Amino acid sequence: MPVDLTYDTSVTDLVDKTSAFVREHVLPVENEFHGDVTAAGGDDLRRRLNDAAREAGVFAPHAPVEFGGLGLTMSDRAPVFEAAGYSTFGPVALHIGAPDEGNVHMLAHIADDRQRTLYLEPLARGIVRSAFAMTEPSPGAGSDPDALRTQAVKVDGGWKINGDKRFITGADGAGFFIIMARTAGSPGDRGGATMFLAPADTPGITVQRHIHTTDKAMIGGHCEVSFRDVFVPDEDILGEVDEGYRYAQVRLGPARMTHVMRWMGSAVRCQDVAVEYVAQREGFGGKLADLGMIQQMIADNEIDLAAARALLIRACHELDAGRHASNETSIAKTFAAEAYLRIVDRSIQMCGGLGVSEDLPLARLQAELRPFRIYDGPSEVHRWAIARRTVGRWRKAQQAKGAGA
Amino acid sequence: MPVDLTYDTSVTDLVDKTSAFVREHVLPVENEFHGDVTAAGGDDLRRRLNDAAREAGVFAPHAPVEFGGLGLTMSDRAPVFEAAGYSTFGPVALHIGAPDEGNVHMLAHIADDRQRTLYLEPLARGIVRSAFAMTEPSPGAGSDPDALRTQAVKVDGGWKINGDKRFITGADGAGFFIIMARTAGSPGDRGGATMFLAPADTPGITVQRHIHTTDKAMIGGHCEVSFRDVFVPDEDILGEVDEGYRYAQVRLGPARMTHVMRWMGSAVRCQDVAVEYVAQREGFGGKLADLGMIQQMIADNEIDLAAARALLIRACHELDAGRHASNETSIAKTFAAEAYLRIVDRSIQMCGGLGVSEDLPLARLQAELRPFRIYDGPSEVHRWAIARRTVGRWRKAQQAKGAGA
Amino acid sequence: MPVDLTYDTSVTDLVDKTSAFVREHVLPVENEFHGDVTAAGGDDLRRRLNDAAREAGVFAPHAPVEFGGLGLTMSDRAPVFEAAGYSTFGPVALHIGAPDEGNVHMLAHIADDRQRTLYLEPLARGIVRSAFAMTEPSPGAGSDPDALRTQAVKVDGGWKINGDKRFITGADGAGFFIIMARTAGSPGDRGGATMFLAPADTPGITVQRHIHTTDKAMIGGHCEVSFRDVFVPDEDILGEVDEGYRYAQVRLGPARMTHVMRWMGSAVRCQDVAVEYVAQREGFGGKLADLGMIQQMIADNEIDLAAARALLIRACHELDAGRHASNETSIAKTFAAEAYLRIVDRSIQMCGGLGVSEDLPLARLQAELRPFRIYDGPSEVHRWAIARRTVGRWRKAQQAKGAGA
Amino acid sequence: MPVDLTYDTSVTDLVDKTSAFVREHVLPVENEFHGDVTAAGGDDLRRRLNDAAREAGVFAPHAPVEFGGLGLTMSDRAPVFEAAGYSTFGPVALHIGAPDEGNVHMLAHIADDRQRTLYLEPLARGIVRSAFAMTEPSPGAGSDPDALRTQAVKVDGGWKINGDKRFITGADGAGFFIIMARTAGSPGDRGGATMFLAPADTPGITVQRHIHTTDKAMIGGHCEVSFRDVFVPDEDILGEVDEGYRYAQVRLGPARMTHVMRWMGSAVRCQDVAVEYVAQREGFGGKLADLGMIQQMIADNEIDLAAARALLIRACHELDAGRHASNETSIAKTFAAEAYLRIVDRSIQMCGGLGVSEDLPLARLQAELRPFRIYDGPSEVHRWAIARRTVGRWRKAQQAKGAGA
Repeated sequence: MPVDLTYDTSVTDLVDKTSAFVREHVLPVENEFHGDVTAAGGDDLRRRLNDAAREAGVFAPHAPVEFGGLGLTMSDRAPVFEAAGYSTFGPVALHIGAPDEGNVHMLAHIADDRQRTLYLEPLARGIVRSAFAMTEPSPGAGSDPDALRTQAVKVDGGWKINGDKRFITGADGAGFFIIMARTAGSPGDRGGATMFLAPADTPGITVQRHIHTTDKAMIGGHCEVSFRDVFVPDEDILGEVDEGYRYAQVRLGPARMTHVMRWMGSAVRCQDVAVEYVAQREGFGGKLADLGMIQQMIADNEIDLAAARALLIRACHELDAGRHASNETSIAKTFAAEAYLRIVDRSIQMCGGLGVSEDLPLARLQAELRPFRIYDGPSEVHRWAIARRTVGRWRKAQQAKGAGA
Repeated sequence: MPVDLTYDTSVTDLVDKTSAFVREHVLPVENEFHGDVTAAGGDDLRRRLNDAAREAGVFAPHAPVEFGGLGLTMSDRAPVFEAAGYSTFGPVALHIGAPDEGNVHMLAHIADDRQRTLYLEPLARGIVRSAFAMTEPSPGAGSDPDALRTQAVKVDGGWKINGDKRFITGADGAGFFIIMARTAGSPGDRGGATMFLAPADTPGITVQRHIHTTDKAMIGGHCEVSFRDVFVPDEDILGEVDEGYRYAQVRLGPARMTHVMRWMGSAVRCQDVAVEYVAQREGFGGKLADLGMIQQMIADNEIDLAAARALLIRACHELDAGRHASNETSIAKTFAAEAYLRIVDRSIQMCGGLGVSEDLPLARLQAELRPFRIYDGPSEVHRWAIARRTVGRWRKAQQAKGAGA
Repeated sequence: MPVDLTYDTSVTDLVDKTSAFVREHVLPVENEFHGDVTAAGGDDLRRRLNDAAREAGVFAPHAPVEFGGLGLTMSDRAPVFEAAGYSTFGPVALHIGAPDEGNVHMLAHIADDRQRTLYLEPLARGIVRSAFAMTEPSPGAGSDPDALRTQAVKVDGGWKINGDKRFITGADGAGFFIIMARTAGSPGDRGGATMFLAPADTPGITVQRHIHTTDKAMIGGHCEVSFRDVFVPDEDILGEVDEGYRYAQVRLGPARMTHVMRWMGSAVRCQDVAVEYVAQREGFGGKLADLGMIQQMIADNEIDLAAARALLIRACHELDAGRHASNETSIAKTFAAEAYLRIVDRSIQMCGGLGVSEDLPLARLQAELRPFRIYDGPSEVHRWAIARRTVGRWRKAQQAKGAGA
Repeated sequence: MPVDLTYDTSVTDLVDKTSAFVREHVLPVENEFHGDVTAAGGDDLRRRLNDAAREAGVFAPHAPVEFGGLGLTMSDRAPVFEAAGYSTFGPVALHIGAPDEGNVHMLAHIADDRQRTLYLEPLARGIVRSAFAMTEPSPGAGSDPDALRTQAVKVDGGWKINGDKRFITGADGAGFFIIMARTAGSPGDRGGATMFLAPADTPGITVQRHIHTTDKAMIGGHCEVSFRDVFVPDEDILGEVDEGYRYAQVRLGPARMTHVMRWMGSAVRCQDVAVEYVAQREGFGGKLADLGMIQQMIADNEIDLAAARALLIRACHELDAGRHASNETSIAKTFAAEAYLRIVDRSIQMCGGLGVSEDLPLARLQAELRPFRIYDGPSEVHRWAIARRTVGRWRKAQQAKGAGA
């Protein structure tokens, strides 16, 4: 049987358990604090919810089994992360939020034994959090990673790192950093980057400030971090020198898809809130849900959810098959980010004045979702990459024809 | 010369003065308090800014000249209000915000001499604020005004009003209310409403709570207000008994258009912020402003601004000519509200991560603008009305043909 | 391994063979006759192309193996039909066009042995064509099938059918008709329809005229057909009396999806034509393919193709699992029809003046694709159905909660 | 009174006369020949309709009064041309189609007395047609006019022109050509173009072929024309040598706007056809016009029409005031072209299966309108220009600030 989209019952059971856990333990806290994870307790809240998740058997479904996780494939993560994402605090509770989830994924692929023990294990078990320090203030590495300016210079026994990073998610309170720094070439060059592991208390690492963005559910915020003469010993190089861009790719595709999974849950919730509202609210001689323009919004939400999910499944399949899947993840990410914003916007519109009020969670979900069209590559950068690949395929096919002639 | 879109120099001068005033006196306060007018001082701030506006000669450009205003037509208000709206605090500063501006407009048309002295003059001069109590919680009057449930019962020397109102802008701190109540018929009937004037300290009027919405620039918030056995003497009936819906129309068209004017200013500001950003920021081997996808967003913003302005001018022309212009104002409002949201969204996207941060005003302008697609009639209700009028015109034309045959 | 989207090599081989066949034998004819299948020879052309397809081993991939087909599942049909649809004449060549393909599918499910021999076999083998007579002129069954007006009255040994049908694809030249007629209830009622088989030369069946639509690739056109006292013996009832709507559902879901498959091929071709153009054409100091706005169109085409394909696969999976999948097929059909029109429109735009000319096939592909947003249920009807199901699920969940309490 | 959008009664009377004329004399012919002006008689038809238009007093409303026209301003042309455009043959009938109308406009501004007599007068009076030979096949002047490759070389007493032109509207049967050729600089340079007048029978001018596009209402088609050693005497230079680009601008803005005007009529007609259909057609328990999703389409058509008209009026006002108005005409053209396509598409959708059939004119109006998003500059080129101007304004403002500091 060639094509099969059926999940194993072990997965569907986990989805059900996750949904129940989120509704019972997570949503009430999120609603009480209007989705502001810092106001709700930050790391204290995280540890409390992590304990509850462990007890419920839903903790760290992505992490390696040897470190207490459930070792799910990307395909199987999809519905579970979606169920967790129904609350914006769900990813924190299950320890599957950015950037930790992506860092666990990457470390599991690249870290050596010593690094697994020192960095991966405490991270996977939720003992510490982590940060991934790649993006920089202008004119450094932002949408265009080749612009990387942070420098690592070889010194005796290790490297000395200098540079500034921006939008470093989870930096405030992280146990360690994965730092991307240039070890060869100049800003603008392809290649020449290396990844370094560094405990947060390494001298020279300073969290300068939080950039206050509209999303409020990521612990440790989005920070500006400076690195001044930060010494990293050779054994804390992650993988090989100058291979940082390649490793970033290992992390990037899956991390993009888990964003899609988590925020899918929020999008589903928006639709649930709106459907509940219009199914009950009277107006114009009936229920709002019976009005054509409302039905159009309900249906468009369903179509957007279905398409986002279908593209996600395709991309996960490719990743599970061991392929890079840059194109599939770009497509799924771009579509999903835009679809979610359409969904939350329609949901607000269906709920009228209450839709823009704190009486419903929709307005803050809009604020939470808006950055996703920018984070992990703005839609425009993904479209640019998708188009270049498309034209590249045509060029190759032309050359093949030419060679065959 | 039949068609002329040139403004008088008296108007363009006022626009320039208003712009200068807003940039010097208003924007700094708005930015300091991140657009939260309550945090910035509420009515204290308002009085301070009103004084500054009077001194600058830009106060109350819409109000009757006899009460210290500049008596502008709707057409001439357009560019002035736009200039004021460049800051979300601008309308408060010039005393041209909702609902006061619309209430001044309506009272100037309908109030008798006594009411002009007691209610209109202090309102026009900015001595008090006011509220317009029409919309109700479900299943009362919301998008569908015929559902009006608040009751006024005739008693000796006046009327006794009972009911609940919701989303009453500016209620908290208002000097008086204009209350829409049913004096004939049942909820669902066309007609049968009357407008009553009542000082805010009239026994039985209680501001129950603020509905916390995403917009933060209207003084006095959006409130739930209850009316319990509120006595209004006969002389405080505004206009005629049972003519409330007709008067609401007098208020509605212009009030819709001044919303369009004010928020036009915010939309222009979004574009200004984004253009300034992409014109300077480097990326992908040049300025962001030189990238095609960025240019598309810049151009689409310009097109949206131009179209919104052109529709606004058309509607103002109709209103100034003494016509109801329900269709023209519906079209202009619907288009503008949606255009502004596209504009702010594109502007955010152009600014990348900073776009969703407090470093730029865009994210909070999005929150400020989002409700406009719902306030003053959601787009769906306007579209429904526009469609019905279109089909109605066809039906009439058919009947005329039939009659002519 | 729970989720698997890999096709069997038998399928990918067939896709390759189909592509090669279409490019060699079908595209040249289509291009010569500008996509007008009647001008290209109609049934003569069909027979010629069918022979070629048999020889190439790609004929009737959907038909039962016992009748010379390849017996593919819905999932496996998807890429094969897409390859065929790369030319608008491909479906005719492979004998997988509407309505024959859907009729084969339905007859294989419902016909009794006698009917299999008399109707299904000659149809499956391409000896005759067929028509499915369901839709009617206003006020009969159109988007709303319950409005069915064609009547079948019981007479001795069979039924007598009277009524008018419209948009009956392939009627002109069909070997037999499947006629949907009301055997119980009144127009507007759910249920009460029966399916009848009738040779085209049955007295009383008349093809009145062709409705000339913008699509030109379906043999036998879209016709108005009248039925006047058409006698059908009892043994030519397809399935059970009064079960017509249920059987129509059996046909509908798969037939919708094969439309999506076939026109996917046309959409891919549009993108191919446009990419080839912009990759070569100079302008504004480089290739058009290097301009941001062009890249956006290329990328959006890729995203639309990927999403349509992903939704199609999901729906096929459901159908292959034996489920009705009304919702999945509605979603896939609605999304795909709209996506294809966006794709062809962008492709035209990328090619500038040539895009709207006969020098390229794009303009006629637009004309060919436009009806799909209407055929097989306009988008609006699907959205209405999707919305009702969504609200229905919510209502059921509410009742379940209520029952559980 | 600063802003006035009221038309003079002389204009509204002319609009009424034009509408009556079009419905009586023009629409029946258009419908009979399904909008194909060549099939309907080409220049024979044109002469016949021109005579009828003269008799009805509606001929050449734009042409100078001295040559028998009505000498309308751009603002006043707008509603008249719209009324004419209600039929796709209307512009031919009134002699206000492209390219003649734009050529009259340009010649009236630039031609010297001799040229007025020899070229302008017979053209304005409808005795001959004309063509404007600017655009070239790739890699020549298309969307990017600087790429001009056709060369004019100075010879004794005049110039010798060599080059190939493409998409030359009306070339087949034109009485004379206005030829844009390079007299200085190289392809890619700004400037260096000159305009030449040449009778169509000048040796060396050959209409090579028609490019068959989806629009069928322009007489003389869109042709490829070759110029081989075409001699033009000095006195047939239009204006000054090397000033061709500047003159093209004189022609371009107004010509763009008259396109908008004419096709506005077609868009209005689409909406009329659709409204008439849905107001009468039954379905889903009522008239289609009472369904929310249909109402949304009707309303969106109204909004698009109103916005296109409002932008047009703004641009005409600027042109009448003697300004270049490149930005205003770009905005109006871009918005209108896209709006018209949305309108015709929604109109088709409202009419279901008949919408894509020849029973209604909608499908061919879609084919007629589609090129407008490409002709006279594709939307992408206009957006690029609009964006550059926007950023340019910001840069200038910055420099002004810098200079002032």
